[in-house]
Amino acid sequence: MFGLMQDRPLLISSLIDYAATFHPHAEIVGRTVEGPVHRTDYAQIQRSAKQVANALETLGIESGDRVGTLAWNTWRHLALYFGVSGSGAVLHTVNPRLFPEQIDYIVNHAEDKVLFFDTTFAPLVEKLAPALKSVRAFIAMTDRAHMPAIDVPNLLCFDELVGSQSEQYEWPEFDERTASSLCYTSGTTGNPKGVLYSHRSTVLHSLMECAPDTFGVNSQMTLLLAVPMFHANAWGMPYAAAMTGMKLVMPGPHMDGQSLYELMRDEKVGFSQAVPTIWLMLFQYFDAHPEIDTRAIGLKRIGVGGAATPRSMIERFERDFGADFVQGWGMTETSPIGVIGNLLPKHLSMPKEEQTRVKMRQGRGVWGVELKIVGEDGQRLPHDGKAFGHLHVRGPWIASGYFKGEGGSVLDAEGFFPTGDVANIDGDGYVQLVDRAKDVIKSGGEWISSIDLENAASLHPAVAEAAVIGIAHPKWQERPLLIVVKRAGMEATREELLTFLAERVVKWWLPEDVVFVDSLPHTATGKLLKTKLREQFKGYVATTSV
Amino acid sequence: MFGLMQDRPLLISSLIDYAATFHPHAEIVGRTVEGPVHRTDYAQIQRSAKQVANALETLGIESGDRVGTLAWNTWRHLALYFGVSGSGAVLHTVNPRLFPEQIDYIVNHAEDKVLFFDTTFAPLVEKLAPALKSVRAFIAMTDRAHMPAIDVPNLLCFDELVGSQSEQYEWPEFDERTASSLCYTSGTTGNPKGVLYSHRSTVLHSLMECAPDTFGVNSQMTLLLAVPMFHANAWGMPYAAAMTGMKLVMPGPHMDGQSLYELMRDEKVGFSQAVPTIWLMLFQYFDAHPEIDTRAIGLKRIGVGGAATPRSMIERFERDFGADFVQGWGMTETSPIGVIGNLLPKHLSMPKEEQTRVKMRQGRGVWGVELKIVGEDGQRLPHDGKAFGHLHVRGPWIASGYFKGEGGSVLDAEGFFPTGDVANIDGDGYVQLVDRAKDVIKSGGEWISSIDLENAASLHPAVAEAAVIGIAHPKWQERPLLIVVKRAGMEATREELLTFLAERVVKWWLPEDVVFVDSLPHTATGKLLKTKLREQFKGYVATTSV
Ligand SMILES: Nc1ncnc2c1ncn2[C@@H]1O[C@H](COP(=O)(O)OP(=O)(O)OP(=O)(O)O)[C@@H](O)[C@H]1O
Ligand SMILES: Nc1ncnc2c1ncn2[C@@H]1O[C@H](COP(=O)(O)OP(=O)(O)OP(=O)(O)O)[C@@H](O)[C@H]1O
Ligand SMILES: [Mg+2]
Ligand SMILES: [Mg+2]
Repeated sequence: MFGLMQDRPLLISSLIDYAATFHPHAEIVGRTVEGPVHRTDYAQIQRSAKQVANALETLGIESGDRVGTLAWNTWRHLALYFGVSGSGAVLHTVNPRLFPEQIDYIVNHAEDKVLFFDTTFAPLVEKLAPALKSVRAFIAMTDRAHMPAIDVPNLLCFDELVGSQSEQYEWPEFDERTASSLCYTSGTTGNPKGVLYSHRSTVLHSLMECAPDTFGVNSQMTLLLAVPMFHANAWGMPYAAAMTGMKLVMPGPHMDGQSLYELMRDEKVGFSQAVPTIWLMLFQYFDAHPEIDTRAIGLKRIGVGGAATPRSMIERFERDFGADFVQGWGMTETSPIGVIGNLLPKHLSMPKEEQTRVKMRQGRGVWGVELKIVGEDGQRLPHDGKAFGHLHVRGPWIASGYFKGEGGSVLDAEGFFPTGDVANIDGDGYVQLVDRAKDVIKSGGEWISSIDLENAASLHPAVAEAAVIGIAHPKWQERPLLIVVKRAGMEATREELLTFLAERVVKWWLPEDVVFVDSLPHTATGKLLKTKLREQFKGYVATTSV
Repeated sequence: MFGLMQDRPLLISSLIDYAATFHPHAEIVGRTVEGPVHRTDYAQIQRSAKQVANALETLGIESGDRVGTLAWNTWRHLALYFGVSGSGAVLHTVNPRLFPEQIDYIVNHAEDKVLFFDTTFAPLVEKLAPALKSVRAFIAMTDRAHMPAIDVPNLLCFDELVGSQSEQYEWPEFDERTASSLCYTSGTTGNPKGVLYSHRSTVLHSLMECAPDTFGVNSQMTLLLAVPMFHANAWGMPYAAAMTGMKLVMPGPHMDGQSLYELMRDEKVGFSQAVPTIWLMLFQYFDAHPEIDTRAIGLKRIGVGGAATPRSMIERFERDFGADFVQGWGMTETSPIGVIGNLLPKHLSMPKEEQTRVKMRQGRGVWGVELKIVGEDGQRLPHDGKAFGHLHVRGPWIASGYFKGEGGSVLDAEGFFPTGDVANIDGDGYVQLVDRAKDVIKSGGEWISSIDLENAASLHPAVAEAAVIGIAHPKWQERPLLIVVKRAGMEATREELLTFLAERVVKWWLPEDVVFVDSLPHTATGKLLKTKLREQFKGYVATTSV
């Protein structure tokens, strides 16, 4: 027997409709590609989104068609977020930091029918255009005055195309499982694969982002959107923002420390999220400007995810900014909420020091994401904070597979998604990431965490960046190799570093050798590209054995 | 094209599973019917819920069957909430404060197969049992020692029946639209009608209750559940609590001021919700105990709904308790979140006085509840804070009709539910309730709000309670009649009250007459029973015309 409640589909169009109706004048403020700050509001974004929907119709875009974007966090991109998905088409956000050949691969694989791009990427688009067979029109996201002089077929101007459309548009109603957006993983572990979100998964994920146990998004907050909209839907924040009418501040392409600071200060930002690299850049700016009163900014909450957070970052945000710090773990495949590191009641009375230790774990389970860790045999391991294994997740905003079936059927027998990460889970449900499964070093049947070794090495003053990979070993199968970039003007020897590490990790974890390099390879999202390192150091033989 | 996200149904069992997994030891504390305080946790409630599911199987309960409860807010009732719905049966919470003939009607209409009841209601159950044809077993929610000595067929003991079951039970997976619980409206406007909630509507509603723009339910909070679990699912809080692992404090039958205060103090309650009557009772207790330091309780948030909130209540909670006050409007038919009166950013810098004015409105629209006000012709009226009309609502946790089709097809042409309330909506989306459509007084084509007149009359020191109804009038069709209960030992005349009102309302709103009575009729949920009053004063002729 079914309940007698209204059968309303969960659609992305309802989010912008809510904001435009109940928070029409809540602000959307952003730096533009052209430079100046642009101010608009939800009422206007809704009108622009409806114009986008009408424009797509004139371009012949139909329900399910992919619409590509190569763009920063701007109001035009926001209008595309709601206009494209709201109309029933699929918003395909392409990461412009990928290698050109990856972009080529992705756009062709997705069969994008049109491509919206910021003028920053005009040269890139010009270069790629001939290979992008499916793309019928290239739309520069700017006004007539700033149109790039490039040679691509069917080049259109966003403000002309979209601005000339009617603001009247009736959002279609359809099944909430309909695909809404598409985002490819960044490719640290092979060819990028497409994650195809649905309206349902997006709306449910937005609801969870409002819960205080995740981010507590609400209408009294002002968010600086420092996660790119081309990466996992900017962690879903554009949707959650509209769901609550939260004031949004967007940096456009100006992601440097000074620009971010100025936006925070001028727009009274209370909340922001980003990967650690962004915050390190911001810290560098403040290091160079000790005269700035960072507490005066009024930051209340800072979120970090995408990579492990150094303890010093947590401490600095809390000490210098008076902001509450929260780490999260997630993936493109998890929308991205996986786990979030808010404190439990019992932690509140603990000393700061211990709270920070809790916050260094990746985060705690929230409703909607079932977690398990399993051994090599697929059996569940206990949640005791010690046992570690492959982290598998299940829930309504977790991927069930990849676009066009890439990677085959990925779910395990219980329908969980294997994340490729190795972790332990403690009794309170806090997850600690040990390593990516592909990066963990299998030494004589035991596992060594490359992340732990990298973190330990990073504490040495002369180490700018460290990577640890496994190299083949006749007796132990694999042994760790430490690869180090030295800080400019500083020195350190192999022996010094090994002695330093010996005080911090168990003996059998000690790297077999240390090599010094000028730089380390990274992915488009700033993560260490270990596949490349493993290639480079294939067959490497340690100078002396320890 | 569908997205490629996991197809996980939204089921109530997932809520208790979450709490038991991630907050196993978060406390559930409650006064029992027997008296003492009982302490348990989510891990144990999950086990009890699974035992309930097994017990239902032994009783022959199948998916979709209704399981009745006549019970207070206790851990046993909580175990039924999750055990009954989780197993696929329908939890039918019966309001024990209804008149016996209404309970008889409701249980027979719902065809409850079994009835769980608190021993408080043993005499009532004994009296009703012969008429409850569908009920196969009566289960007293207590242990063997406290079993009531009543003569009903197949009388069982909860602790024996449930406690003897296995704690192993695999929740079934089914369509999320499956009916989960059933609650009848309280009957101010006719025979009670059943609202049949679904798993989907319940889970979505719980998600919204976590949003700070509604109640911000989270794991760091402690809630005193002062809304009865037999009334609109205790405003959905048992579900939202489990979704976050929030500590729950339950008063059982001990709803008097002293008991509530002691629970608040002993359990460090930060948040509570109730209808205004409950808070007035609590205030009376504090009036009699001026030595109590109300700020020391540590209340952070107070929610009120179900009836209009007097200004003095808002002020007192904020002044004496230091608690943030929030009013909400909702109905059994809206799960019950309709609108919630949190402040917007622009209000935060306003003087307290003006914030209170905002908080006296019923509340602001939140995502998931579309609102419109329409005139007699069904046309939408503007949201300008002035125009008022019938309030219609639409959304995934709003009823589409009543159980067994009572009342026919109720939705309007756009699929909105007509609430029966008359309201205006201002530019910020705050709703102000004018009256129930059936209570509004139609005077010469214009509407007079009975609520506004009652509120104005209540300000007079000699007025304990006031009701306003329409009486027939040869010229104006209807005119207001003010019916007053005087405060013990105080006096007031018809003329005095009319003069008092003349300073507070426009001239044509002035009541045609004033009558004094010893008491006013109320519904089971403490609301004025105006149908009864209208009957009583049918054909009433005013003594003199004004
Ligand atoms: N808080 C965190 N601490 C440590 N690592 C994290 C954290 N959050 C995310 N990660 C890492 O980032 C991964 C998710 O990143 P993302 O989805 O952006 O692409 P990617 O996994 O780097 O790319 P690809 O899947 O193509 O290799 C996780 O699987 C995890 O390894
Ligand atoms: N904040 C509020 N201020 C004023 N009135 C309110 C408020 N919240 C709820 N109400 C009133 O309560 C009604 C909902 O109450 P409920 O669903 O408990 O049963 P009922 O409407 O009293 O009973 P019945 O439908 O049988 O007449 C609303 O329709 C509205 O009239
Ligand atoms: Mg990945
Ligand atoms: Mg009603």
